[in-house]
Amino acid sequence: MENLHTAPRLTTLCYAEKEDAYLMLHRVKKVNDVNKDKWIGIGGHFEVGESPEECIRREALEETGLTLKDLRFRSIVTFCFRKPENAYDGVKWDDWEYMCLFTATVEDEELSECYEGDLEWVKKDRIGELNLWEGDMVFFRLLAEGEPFFSLKLCYHGSRLMQAELNGNVMEV
Amino acid sequence: MENLHTAPRLTTLCYAEKEDAYLMLHRVKKVNDVNKDKWIGIGGHFEVGESPEECIRREALEETGLTLKDLRFRSIVTFCFRKPENAYDGVKWDDWEYMCLFTATVEDEELSECYEGDLEWVKKDRIGELNLWEGDMVFFRLLAEGEPFFSLKLCYHGSRLMQAELNGNVMEV
Repeated sequence: MENLHTAPRLTTLCYAEKEDAYLMLHRVKKVNDVNKDKWIGIGGHFEVGESPEECIRREALEETGLTLKDLRFRSIVTFCFRKPENAYDGVKWDDWEYMCLFTATVEDEELSECYEGDLEWVKKDRIGELNLWEGDMVFFRLLAEGEPFFSLKLCYHGSRLMQAELNGNVMEV
Repeated sequence: MENLHTAPRLTTLCYAEKEDAYLMLHRVKKVNDVNKDKWIGIGGHFEVGESPEECIRREALEETGLTLKDLRFRSIVTFCFRKPENAYDGVKWDDWEYMCLFTATVEDEELSECYEGDLEWVKKDRIGELNLWEGDMVFFRLLAEGEPFFSLKLCYHGSRLMQAELNGNVMEV
């Protein structure tokens, strides 16, 4: 496959809830961050032998100091990325990732300093005002609708969402 | 991590159902097959950019000639393997895999020849008599109980199941 010589990335992401807000991370601190200036949930890469639950619990603790409660495995998201300088044909990809998406609750503990960005509790009805990846609003909608578990595929050309599939069926984007 | 320099394997597996039987593959054909002589479901490795659904539909078609219907994403299974010649400490691993587990139905089509083994419809109440991986009976039980989605971690020393976790909680093995 042209331009792609790596195995897929494997990550976890969690939207931790408290009252009517999600804990969001504003990625402003790391240089060369694919998420630079975007708001995302907490999470990161798997270490050897970790289950998805072990990975997200460790990442949450490292990034926020918080212990996740009521952890719920909500989705597997397949991401395909094409660099903006390469033509998009929906077949060739420059990067590729599987993300395990969780929700959880947390108790009223103090947030620690996060080296990857600024942590902030954002009211659920204000999430749409943030600088998000285009496809992230699809997660938020499906989570809000209470979908117990879904498999989502999101294909990007640069930062533009080009294709989406829910449980193997094409969605309008 | 000692002895482990590779990224995890990523696979799909499907138990296709017809009436009261599952389609099982008796892995007798490939040399140097980690599943040699075992009975498993159909499935295989991801190709670049495939969603779990795309992967299992392609694999099912290649291995059996069948088109999967009513595809349901039932589980993510985290496998950790330690070679029998290495001491087991529950921390160091020689191999590591994430498997997306599906169920599906199929219509009464003819099975094609499978180069990986012999395909056979096995009545659900006879599955326990097959030469299975020890942890596979855990899947069958959870599937039979109708669990909508579960995350399972299975840790092996050689072919012996040493630890199991369901949705992050330790199970008796």
